[in-house]
Amino acid sequence: MDSMTIIAVASIVIAGITTGFGTMGPALAEGRAVATALTSLAQQPDASATITRTLFVGLAMIESTAIYCFVVSMILIFANPFWNYSIALTAGK
Amino acid sequence: MDSMTIIAVASIVIAGITTGFGTMGPALAEGRAVATALTSLAQQPDASATITRTLFVGLAMIESTAIYCFVVSMILIFANPFWNYSIALTAGK
Amino acid sequence: MDSMTIIAVASIVIAGITTGFGTMGPALAEGRAVATALTSLAQQPDASATITRTLFVGLAMIESTAIYCFVVSMILIFANPFWNYSIALTAGK
Amino acid sequence: MDSMTIIAVASIVIAGITTGFGTMGPALAEGRAVATALTSLAQQPDASATITRTLFVGLAMIESTAIYCFVVSMILIFANPFWNYSIALTAGK
Amino acid sequence: MDSMTIIAVASIVIAGITTGFGTMGPALAEGRAVATALTSLAQQPDASATITRTLFVGLAMIESTAIYCFVVSMILIFANPFWNYSIALTAGK
Amino acid sequence: MDSMTIIAVASIVIAGITTGFGTMGPALAEGRAVATALTSLAQQPDASATITRTLFVGLAMIESTAIYCFVVSMILIFANPFWNYSIALTAGK
Amino acid sequence: MDSMTIIAVASIVIAGITTGFGTMGPALAEGRAVATALTSLAQQPDASATITRTLFVGLAMIESTAIYCFVVSMILIFANPFWNYSIALTAGK
Amino acid sequence: MDSMTIIAVASIVIAGITTGFGTMGPALAEGRAVATALTSLAQQPDASATITRTLFVGLAMIESTAIYCFVVSMILIFANPFWNYSIALTAGK
Amino acid sequence: MDSMTIIAVASIVIAGITTGFGTMGPALAEGRAVATALTSLAQQPDASATITRTLFVGLAMIESTAIYCFVVSMILIFANPFWNYSIALTAGK
Amino acid sequence: MDSMTIIAVASIVIAGITTGFGTMGPALAEGRAVATALTSLAQQPDASATITRTLFVGLAMIESTAIYCFVVSMILIFANPFWNYSIALTAGK
Amino acid sequence: MDSMTIIAVASIVIAGITTGFGTMGPALAEGRAVATALTSLAQQPDASATITRTLFVGLAMIESTAIYCFVVSMILIFANPFWNYSIALTAGK
Amino acid sequence: MDSMTIIAVASIVIAGITTGFGTMGPALAEGRAVATALTSLAQQPDASATITRTLFVGLAMIESTAIYCFVVSMILIFANPFWNYSIALTAGK
Amino acid sequence: MDSMTIIAVASIVIAGITTGFGTMGPALAEGRAVATALTSLAQQPDASATITRTLFVGLAMIESTAIYCFVVSMILIFANPFWNYSIALTAGK
Amino acid sequence: MDSMTIIAVASIVIAGITTGFGTMGPALAEGRAVATALTSLAQQPDASATITRTLFVGLAMIESTAIYCFVVSMILIFANPFWNYSIALTAGK
Repeated sequence: MDSMTIIAVASIVIAGITTGFGTMGPALAEGRAVATALTSLAQQPDASATITRTLFVGLAMIESTAIYCFVVSMILIFANPFWNYSIALTAGK
Repeated sequence: MDSMTIIAVASIVIAGITTGFGTMGPALAEGRAVATALTSLAQQPDASATITRTLFVGLAMIESTAIYCFVVSMILIFANPFWNYSIALTAGK
Repeated sequence: MDSMTIIAVASIVIAGITTGFGTMGPALAEGRAVATALTSLAQQPDASATITRTLFVGLAMIESTAIYCFVVSMILIFANPFWNYSIALTAGK
Repeated sequence: MDSMTIIAVASIVIAGITTGFGTMGPALAEGRAVATALTSLAQQPDASATITRTLFVGLAMIESTAIYCFVVSMILIFANPFWNYSIALTAGK
Repeated sequence: MDSMTIIAVASIVIAGITTGFGTMGPALAEGRAVATALTSLAQQPDASATITRTLFVGLAMIESTAIYCFVVSMILIFANPFWNYSIALTAGK
Repeated sequence: MDSMTIIAVASIVIAGITTGFGTMGPALAEGRAVATALTSLAQQPDASATITRTLFVGLAMIESTAIYCFVVSMILIFANPFWNYSIALTAGK
Repeated sequence: MDSMTIIAVASIVIAGITTGFGTMGPALAEGRAVATALTSLAQQPDASATITRTLFVGLAMIESTAIYCFVVSMILIFANPFWNYSIALTAGK
Repeated sequence: MDSMTIIAVASIVIAGITTGFGTMGPALAEGRAVATALTSLAQQPDASATITRTLFVGLAMIESTAIYCFVVSMILIFANPFWNYSIALTAGK
Repeated sequence: MDSMTIIAVASIVIAGITTGFGTMGPALAEGRAVATALTSLAQQPDASATITRTLFVGLAMIESTAIYCFVVSMILIFANPFWNYSIALTAGK
Repeated sequence: MDSMTIIAVASIVIAGITTGFGTMGPALAEGRAVATALTSLAQQPDASATITRTLFVGLAMIESTAIYCFVVSMILIFANPFWNYSIALTAGK
Repeated sequence: MDSMTIIAVASIVIAGITTGFGTMGPALAEGRAVATALTSLAQQPDASATITRTLFVGLAMIESTAIYCFVVSMILIFANPFWNYSIALTAGK
Repeated sequence: MDSMTIIAVASIVIAGITTGFGTMGPALAEGRAVATALTSLAQQPDASATITRTLFVGLAMIESTAIYCFVVSMILIFANPFWNYSIALTAGK
Repeated sequence: MDSMTIIAVASIVIAGITTGFGTMGPALAEGRAVATALTSLAQQPDASATITRTLFVGLAMIESTAIYCFVVSMILIFANPFWNYSIALTAGK
Repeated sequence: MDSMTIIAVASIVIAGITTGFGTMGPALAEGRAVATALTSLAQQPDASATITRTLFVGLAMIESTAIYCFVVSMILIFANPFWNYSIALTAGK
């Protein structure tokens, strides 16, 4: 295996794993937050404005960790400095 | 094994694993959210409008993490830059 | 092992694993949703229309993640671009 | 090991694993659904019609994920395109 | 190792694992269903007819997933197409 | 290692594992069922006839999954078609 | 390593593992059953006859799965057909 | 490594593992049974005779699974038929 | 594999794993904090100012651990001293 | 590695593992039993004689499983028949 | 692989893992502390000063363990004595 | 590697693992016992004499399992018969 | 790989793992202690002096176990006797 | 690798693992004990003297298991008999 293949394979593998496993935590956390929001709404319908607002702020922060993972995956697939360097090396040869 | 085979195999493996495991978290989270929604509806039928609306927003956000995984799988199968590069390399030879 | 065999084996293995493990999450989530629906129905029989409707929407969304896995498996078995490319390569030789 | 043996072994292994592990989730989920149905029936015998109907719809949807796994196993054993292709290749030689 | 031995070993191993692990889920699920049925009977002896009927339907559906596993094991041991093909190949030589 | 040894070893290993692990699920499930039966008897001594009958039916169904495992083990040790075939092959040589 | 050594080692290893791990499930299940029996006795001392009888039937059924494991171990150590066959083969040489 | 060393090592390893892990389940189960007995005694001191008797019967049955493991270990160390056979073989040479 | 490739691969792999797994903990922790905040709001709507303020401080501290992981990933991809050193070494050759 | 070294290493490794892991179960079980005894004493100080006596009998039985492990370790270190046999073999040479 | 590459790779891998996994515990612990603080605030709004103060002291102590991990990572990347030694060795050659 | 090194390494590794993992169970068990003692003291301060006495007896028995592990470690480091034998062998050469 | 590189790599790896995993337990334990302190403060604000004092003593003892890990890491990085010995050996050559 | 390097590496690795993992159990156990102490103090402030005394005795016993681990680590790093023996051997050569 030449160097470029190895880097390509590593990028593919890690891009998939980072997104595949990294979204597990946020998904479960959002499920928990939404579930509690629904319980709270059923228990105290009058506070629905505050509850909904806090829920959305919280979901945004949790989603941010999922987005970190997705960003790392996209960087590894489309803007990988190690891959670019080795293409440049090959082209410069 | 030549380089193209390795890249193909890695793409196949990771495409499957990313979708197969990455949908586990969202599925469980959605199951939890739906379950709590049903409990809340049974407890407070009058707030069904608010509950249903919050549930759908929440499900959409959770589903988004499952879709990240599916998107990464599809990119790896049908729009893989490493695979395209190595086809171009082979064709250009 | 020649390239085609490797790709075939990887496709078989991943097709099975993706479906076999990827349906675990949705199955458990649906079991939870159905279980809560039954509890809610027993607790509040009057709201059965709303509960049933919400349950079916929820089951559809959870089932969608199981279907992503099944779709990826079917693509890998019957519409695998890497396999088609290597058949074309063999045929073109 | 020649190519056909490898494909055969991979098909056997994955067919078994897909069914063996893929039915674990549905089985547990059905057990949960049935258990809750029984609790609900004991708690609210009058709603037995609605409960039984919802239970059967739910069991059908959960069973569908077990059937996806069984279908993939059967495809791998009896209608495996990779195996057919390599038999054709051997026969055509 | 010649091809036939490999196929035989893979069939033996997978036949055992599929049954050994695949019956774990159904067994636990049936244990849960039976346990809840007993609780329900103790709580509501008058509904014993409905409870017992629902229990038996549920057990039948859960048992079906255990039977899928057993069927796959039996196919692999006594009606294995890959094994038959390689016996035919040996005999035809 | 010659072919017969490999098949013998695989049969021994899988026979043990199938029984050793496959009886874990049924044992736990039966423990659960018996435990709940005892709780129910203490709670509702008058329904002891129905409870005991349902318990025995349930235990029989759970035990059936343990027996599947034991049967597969016994088949692998005493009626193994792959082993018989290879003895026949050796004898016929 | 000659064939007999391999078969001996496999038999030793599996005999130990089958008993060592296979008794874990039954032990835990019996612990659970006994524990519930004691709770039930404390709660309803009048029903001690029925409780004790049901407990003993249940323990017998759970113990049966432990005995399957022990039987397989003893067969592998003292009545192993593969070992006997290879001793016969050696003696007959 | 000659055959006798391998058999000796396998016997040592498995003797230790069988006892070391196989006593884990019984220990936990006995802990549970004793704990419940103490709770029951505190709750219903008058039934101490029945509780103690049932506890001892239960502990004896759970201990029996630990003793199966210990027996297998002792057989492997002091009455190992495979070891005896290979000593006899060595002595007879 | 030359040294640069190894360092590139290690950086890619670890960058992905650090973000992918390191955000799991914070995501779950934030989900828990948000969920409790919603419960508290439903229970004591008057204290919403204090609750929201404490929630945001807490989320910021939890998010900080996710950011440590993201920072390490970014350092490994874009400001890796080992990679820079080896580029300098290659350029200086 | 000569035979004696292998046997020595195996004995050392297994002696440590058997004691190290085999005491985990008894320790946890004793912790549970002691904890329940303390709860029971606080709840029913009058029954302290019966509770203490039952606790000590129970601790003795649980400790017995830890002692099985310790005994196996000591046998492997100080009275190992395989080690003695190979010393005798070496001395007799 | 020369010595410097190995040290570089080890440093990269461990720096990522230490931060990635080492922040999991603190994150979960902080999530728990914040969650309980919010529950306490909702339950006893008058004690908000004491609660907030204790929370911040506690978060600081928990965060300190996350910072130990981050410090070790930074030392390994930017102030690694083993790396410096081997650069000095190379430069001195 | 010569024999003495292997024995030394095995002794070091197992001495550490036996103590490191073997004290986990006792530590958790003691934590549980102490925690329950504190709960009991808060609930029934009058029985503090009996509770404290029972606690200390229990802690002593649990600690004994930790001491078994420590003893095995010390034997392996400072009174290892296999090590002594091989030193004697070396010295006697 | 020469000896110094191996020792350096082992020191780096273990320094990271010891801190990364060893702080997980203390972090979770501190989170638990802080959480309970907050619950207790909300429940009994009058005892805040005693609670806070006990909390700080407890946190100090738990933190001590995290500090053991950090100390071992620092010793391995900056005061490693094995590393010093091998530098001395190299310098003395 | 020469013998001394192997012994050094094994000592480093095990010293780190013993402390890193061995302090996990004590830390969690102390967290539990402290948490219960705080609950008890809030519930029964009058018994604070007895509670605090019992807590400190308990923490001391739990800490002792952490100290066993630390002692083993320190012995392996600074007073390792196997290392001393092999230095003596090298010096004596």
